[in-house]
Amino acid sequence: MVTPANSRTKKEHHCSIHRSLDLVGEKWSLLIVRNALRGESRFSELRDNLGIPSDVLSARLATLVDAGVLERRSYREPGERERYSYHLTEQGQALKTVLIALQEWGDEYNPSPGGRVSLTQDAATGQHASIGFIGDDGSVLDSSAVTMVPGPAAAISW
Amino acid sequence: MVTPANSRTKKEHHCSIHRSLDLVGEKWSLLIVRNALRGESRFSELRDNLGIPSDVLSARLATLVDAGVLERRSYREPGERERYSYHLTEQGQALKTVLIALQEWGDEYNPSPGGRVSLTQDAATGQHASIGFIGDDGSVLDSSAVTMVPGPAAAISW
Repeated sequence: MVTPANSRTKKEHHCSIHRSLDLVGEKWSLLIVRNALRGESRFSELRDNLGIPSDVLSARLATLVDAGVLERRSYREPGERERYSYHLTEQGQALKTVLIALQEWGDEYNPSPGGRVSLTQDAATGQHASIGFIGDDGSVLDSSAVTMVPGPAAAISW
Repeated sequence: MVTPANSRTKKEHHCSIHRSLDLVGEKWSLLIVRNALRGESRFSELRDNLGIPSDVLSARLATLVDAGVLERRSYREPGERERYSYHLTEQGQALKTVLIALQEWGDEYNPSPGGRVSLTQDAATGQHASIGFIGDDGSVLDSSAVTMVPGPAAAISW
């Protein structure tokens, strides 16, 4: 019996955190997205700036394209062969919040002795921005009062 | 020449995102923190609810204790041997933002057909809460205008 390579049994998780980590829960994947958010797109610049082996980078890029986080485009420099660049989709851009949450956590609890490498800024006003919780009524909430509670599908998996 | 196990050369990264991922950038680590945020603390409940092999769970818990995310406490049930439970430190509690960011991203772009397992709620008012960006002037910002810009230490590593 022939079994296609992509038909192997994979447990489908219900929790969105688990589902997200299934897509991007690997250190290199999130670092690739970080560099893409900084404007890097070419294989060679990602490889050189991340210091990641080419084969690992190829595999992670393929996973991120499959997951809908990156879009692959071809380009050709004069006199060179066709190459590929990788661009964040809307879904990929939305990971900005996850990365800035990791950044703020690191700056707070594990700061680099050299100072902050990256800051978060509101392009409209130029002011510093930080992550917070907003209520459905539009008010800024006290983060310590925000909790995760079981949702409608919690009976399946909580 | 004797080399202590913990003296192997480890590159110290400057970017807070990279530094954070060095501490918690592994799928199981963040899932352990998720379950701890839901109130689970005992080795056996984490193992059973996560479906993680005992040796992997032991290793991840040790890493999270070393990183200052979890605190280990001993307890003893009547007639049983001493066991350990694991509790989020303040630093560990602060990862709530990272996990809720992953949750919102998953709910938006990769929702479970069964519905939402977990919701985010403001305990003070009972209303639904979501992640957003707040300016230093206290205003809620348009997320699409928020960008990562080089910080003072960007010259070292950006």
